[in-house]
Amino acid sequence: MPRTRAELVSQTGLTRAAVRTRLDALRDAGFLTDHGIRVSTGGRPAGRLAFNAAARSVLAADVGATHATVAVTDLAGGPLAMRRLSLDIADGPEPVLARLAETWRELVRDAGVSVSPAGVGIGLPGPVEHSSGKPNHPPIMPAWDGFDVPAHVRAEFGVPVLVDNEANLMALGEHAHSFPGTDHMIVVKVATGIGSGFISNGVLHRGAVGAAGDLGHIQAPGSDDAPCGCGNTGCLEAVASGSAIVARLRAKGVEAHSSADVVALVRAGNVEAGQAIRHAGRTIGEVLAACVSMVNPSLIVVGGDLAAAGEMLLAGVREAVYCRSLPLATENLRIVPSRAGEVAGVLGAAAMVVHHVLSPSVVDQQLG
Amino acid sequence: MPRTRAELVSQTGLTRAAVRTRLDALRDAGFLTDHGIRVSTGGRPAGRLAFNAAARSVLAADVGATHATVAVTDLAGGPLAMRRLSLDIADGPEPVLARLAETWRELVRDAGVSVSPAGVGIGLPGPVEHSSGKPNHPPIMPAWDGFDVPAHVRAEFGVPVLVDNEANLMALGEHAHSFPGTDHMIVVKVATGIGSGFISNGVLHRGAVGAAGDLGHIQAPGSDDAPCGCGNTGCLEAVASGSAIVARLRAKGVEAHSSADVVALVRAGNVEAGQAIRHAGRTIGEVLAACVSMVNPSLIVVGGDLAAAGEMLLAGVREAVYCRSLPLATENLRIVPSRAGEVAGVLGAAAMVVHHVLSPSVVDQQLG
Repeated sequence: MPRTRAELVSQTGLTRAAVRTRLDALRDAGFLTDHGIRVSTGGRPAGRLAFNAAARSVLAADVGATHATVAVTDLAGGPLAMRRLSLDIADGPEPVLARLAETWRELVRDAGVSVSPAGVGIGLPGPVEHSSGKPNHPPIMPAWDGFDVPAHVRAEFGVPVLVDNEANLMALGEHAHSFPGTDHMIVVKVATGIGSGFISNGVLHRGAVGAAGDLGHIQAPGSDDAPCGCGNTGCLEAVASGSAIVARLRAKGVEAHSSADVVALVRAGNVEAGQAIRHAGRTIGEVLAACVSMVNPSLIVVGGDLAAAGEMLLAGVREAVYCRSLPLATENLRIVPSRAGEVAGVLGAAAMVVHHVLSPSVVDQQLG
Repeated sequence: MPRTRAELVSQTGLTRAAVRTRLDALRDAGFLTDHGIRVSTGGRPAGRLAFNAAARSVLAADVGATHATVAVTDLAGGPLAMRRLSLDIADGPEPVLARLAETWRELVRDAGVSVSPAGVGIGLPGPVEHSSGKPNHPPIMPAWDGFDVPAHVRAEFGVPVLVDNEANLMALGEHAHSFPGTDHMIVVKVATGIGSGFISNGVLHRGAVGAAGDLGHIQAPGSDDAPCGCGNTGCLEAVASGSAIVARLRAKGVEAHSSADVVALVRAGNVEAGQAIRHAGRTIGEVLAACVSMVNPSLIVVGGDLAAAGEMLLAGVREAVYCRSLPLATENLRIVPSRAGEVAGVLGAAAMVVHHVLSPSVVDQQLG
């Protein structure tokens, strides 16, 4: 909302000199632009200043196992250009990050973005130590373990680089773009694996070492000790993920190789696939019911490849959550499909950067 | 930490006039006292001001089913006087609140507290809508349903009255007094029932309607569909709480009527009681493992009557949590007994009031 200098002095309690120094620096940096004249109540007309989202760009990418979504956004996180790439995360960090850098440069050129980037945000499909930006024993991308992603990318672009796991960024993207007023929400990603991001008091809850939201390795009730890639048995991911459903369907002689195949079978009315999705939804719901009792969200958003199966999956989730949670916690609980869809993660990567570069301490540091 | 006026101007960026107005008002209200003279670096010596915890008192109570802990503290939450009462929560709000009021008056008189109270904090053994302070369908205290506790108590003391459930206040008490630097922690209460409070990013996470931390009604793995008072089956509380253990021991012909009896039997080396406690710990640990995957705390504190059974209970909890969680989430996870013990709840009630009355918006309102 545009404001005059006098309004900022009165609203912040800062001195006129402090407000002037900061505003001049922000205007010199292009973060602020003139925004008309406030109708005066006496004295000389007061110029209003507004945030200028076009002052800088943000480079964002959401990297999955076999593809990435790459975007350039403005400083409000709004996309200016976006592209989807095929790649193989197992190639390791250097070739994959080189592909991202090349794509950002192409997008900037093609979209005619003339301003410099304020920061880079990257989502990866595995655990990331958020403070350092280094992947931490990521199961599907072992070559990335401990690789200093921020240092590598910063050497090229010279701006802050933030890295987080894809489920956290999906949650940030849905929160920033689709449900900005929702203080307590869980965003579940159901794809080849299962993960989630959790917004607490309006802020992403990363936990003590950034491992929060790890739904996929919670024990699923009635899971018959199915072996999981993590070394345990009976994990939710081992019984209700895209890969678990594919394995179950193939054991029944149904041809399927990916989450997309499962969704296509469900849409074509295949009974086994429909039952498998409904069952997976119910099992995910049983695990989510425990999370609902623990954190009492007002909203659960279900996204990821398998969410394309739509109401068949959601119906199972709702059935189990509403059955297993106390009335007080579910009275106003909504369970909805993803709104941002495939681009939730890349929008979340941009939102993470915007939040960082506009935080008061970082702004002060840049102005100093 | 004591500060001079000039230091406050420089550290807050507020104008000298704004700092002076607020400090004068806070000093007039007695919240600040002179705290020596800072060694000058030139110019005249600068008087330092410090927070005066003795300026006001706080009235706090932690009410259980059959007893209450009542305290008067200073503005830092430090207890000035404390007493434990027997009472019956089922008598309903008016007689119970009258007992609390009478006890606060006696404690104030006996301890010679001459300053007026800044606020009242009350913990109750059931769900409370924190924004209104009204109990919401509390199972063991139906006569309290929807009763306006804050309005009733405020009519007597004329100060802000805050109400929350006992598990949230235990968490606030442990966080404020025993583990102040811990940003992500779960405090579990194992007594007649089972509940928990959850600190996220250093702040109590109450959830959308204040129902967060409800561990007791999460489905326990392998719970054999034991019927629970909530209307569901297989809840953790139905198989691992004090009352569930008492029922199991009595079914085996072991004489026990309360959590205290169970603890006494364990201490006396009774094999059935020991096995029952260890099994309860393991079951609680299995449910906590799901919470660990979801919120990634660095600390779990186990309190409540049954925690007096000590390592017998904790060993079972640790066994299941470490078995069922991913290495990243448990690498630095500690599982410890309550430090504040019986008084965690009443200290948390005081901490909740201190936090409220010293928050900037409430201070500004009082000064206005």
